[in-house]
Amino acid sequence: MFENKEKTDISKLGEFGLIDHITEKFENSQATTVKGIGDDAAVLNIKDKQQVISTDLYIENVHFDIMYTPLKHLGYKCITASISDICAMRGKPTQVLVSIAISSRYPLEAVEELYVGIKAACDNYKVDLVGGDTSSSKTGLLISVTAIGESTSENITMRSGAKEGDLLCVSGDLGGAYMGLQMLEREKQVFLKEKNMQPDLEGKDYVVGRQLRPEARVDIIELFDELKITPTSLIDVSDGLSSEIFHLCKQSEVGMKVYEDKLPIDQQTYDTAIEFNLPPTTAAMNGGEDYELLFTLSQADYEKIKNSLDITIIGYTTAKHEGVELITKSGNVVPIEAQGWENFKENDNDKKED
Amino acid sequence: MFENKEKTDISKLGEFGLIDHITEKFENSQATTVKGIGDDAAVLNIKDKQQVISTDLYIENVHFDIMYTPLKHLGYKCITASISDICAMRGKPTQVLVSIAISSRYPLEAVEELYVGIKAACDNYKVDLVGGDTSSSKTGLLISVTAIGESTSENITMRSGAKEGDLLCVSGDLGGAYMGLQMLEREKQVFLKEKNMQPDLEGKDYVVGRQLRPEARVDIIELFDELKITPTSLIDVSDGLSSEIFHLCKQSEVGMKVYEDKLPIDQQTYDTAIEFNLPPTTAAMNGGEDYELLFTLSQADYEKIKNSLDITIIGYTTAKHEGVELITKSGNVVPIEAQGWENFKENDNDKKED
Repeated sequence: MFENKEKTDISKLGEFGLIDHITEKFENSQATTVKGIGDDAAVLNIKDKQQVISTDLYIENVHFDIMYTPLKHLGYKCITASISDICAMRGKPTQVLVSIAISSRYPLEAVEELYVGIKAACDNYKVDLVGGDTSSSKTGLLISVTAIGESTSENITMRSGAKEGDLLCVSGDLGGAYMGLQMLEREKQVFLKEKNMQPDLEGKDYVVGRQLRPEARVDIIELFDELKITPTSLIDVSDGLSSEIFHLCKQSEVGMKVYEDKLPIDQQTYDTAIEFNLPPTTAAMNGGEDYELLFTLSQADYEKIKNSLDITIIGYTTAKHEGVELITKSGNVVPIEAQGWENFKENDNDKKED
Repeated sequence: MFENKEKTDISKLGEFGLIDHITEKFENSQATTVKGIGDDAAVLNIKDKQQVISTDLYIENVHFDIMYTPLKHLGYKCITASISDICAMRGKPTQVLVSIAISSRYPLEAVEELYVGIKAACDNYKVDLVGGDTSSSKTGLLISVTAIGESTSENITMRSGAKEGDLLCVSGDLGGAYMGLQMLEREKQVFLKEKNMQPDLEGKDYVVGRQLRPEARVDIIELFDELKITPTSLIDVSDGLSSEIFHLCKQSEVGMKVYEDKLPIDQQTYDTAIEFNLPPTTAAMNGGEDYELLFTLSQADYEKIKNSLDITIIGYTTAKHEGVELITKSGNVVPIEAQGWENFKENDNDKKED
């Protein structure tokens, strides 16, 4: 990954030197940031708002494969994924703390690349990097991100507020990040067999981009404000639609009906799934890492969203005893089960929560 | 470590099951905790206070050795160390978020033990566990703790406020945790050579306790309030006194004189250092993980603290150009250099920051 570049041993800088080096390009822009990096802890002043806070781990060979994940994209994606959790509470992201542990096989330039991505994400989402920790690691790269956001007690939206008869809505489209991962995995296997092969990702820019450089839907949170929409429950699609639907149903104590023919699937996602002999619906239902927002809405709010091109109504909420079901294109009814990425199972794919 | 106990494979629970299992014993007690574990993010409401936030990584074989660190103590210590960072800003700890990554060689019972310690610390410091993440790990155990506290803009004390002529003070005593580590390392080596040997830690309870079960000095923060003391700068002793003095001097742009004969060293720390052919002063100056508080105080505050048995005046602040110096018992003047635990150097000892 760094073959043609200069390599600097991180130990030359020492930890304090590394922190200075990493953080010198970051500037605070949030009014709530009183003191960022450089003391024992950051200081925030959020006054009359409520605060939303979430933390996530990203571990090499568990959550990402450095063989096909450019470090800039990895840095960007870690921030995106954490900010998506803030959006999933209807919070507006304001600060992040980022800790990294790295093995000695990573030179300083690798850390710099990672932080180029972290900084790009901080700039894009207008969040301040206010703290973190650095450590050596015995194996690979680990990133821990704590994201902070603000909201009001009226606006904060949990998983638990869905009511019978609500509309079930999702932003953007689903399954793309998963098909991008399949593409990258396939090209990795080709490369491992024949080192001179260049990856063939032609015509797969959308799905690969969904995997490597996802965006958190801060714009949808802003849209809620603009359109005066009040979701009754809200979650982000990080583990896969089935899993998120399961969470909403469990915590809201409701059932749901989801229509297969309503699932928003991009054409490239669809075509790639077919190429992989995978039903596109499976990619949409069980593929994770789309970082779209899934929410329920009172039917009274229907008029407000019906013209939003980026929001799709995919089903509705029922009484709990009616279960959680997918109505297929052919009219069959099949139970939906939480699938997500169970990273404690043998398959060590991505799985995260909170 | 778990030879005689029942072992349950974590994968049987799945991640969500594991989270439920871990968190069912935790209850929130802080008024600022609106919503803890169980949604995408925690929700806090801190109203008119300012907030202090810090994050740290604890990595097996970098920061701790599971051979002589009982998991209960490890859990307790991770929380202590993070809360110490909050104290180091004159904040009062209120919440923590704890993420863990574990390899499959750890059974569920190990995670339970770890959380017994985490819970004991949360109970002791009256902080709410409000979030976290769990993941598998390819090697060993990793813990990431984000600690949150509250303070007021008047009380928050950074590293940067020391003025020329201030008194340099430290709580408790120094070097104990380091000598405890030396004891444990020695007994580990004995054990590795002769498996039937039982560790001989007799008469070393204090130093071993300082290493395995340190406490954050929340009581000193409360004492500041009671005595109406206003430290001009403040830091916790996690990397070693020399390193912390160096931070205060650098960020306050001052020099310091420290008196060797004033350094508070417990008798057992002293005796153990002598046993290891180590000058006790070196243990006190460069040993880390004592989690005591180091602070500067205007001379006007001298009367308020002179009777506090748990606070020692070890020197004073000078102009920057006078340097950072130790006045030895024999009256020699030697420059103090930041040493701490540089974990990017070959010696993979503990090193942390922020």
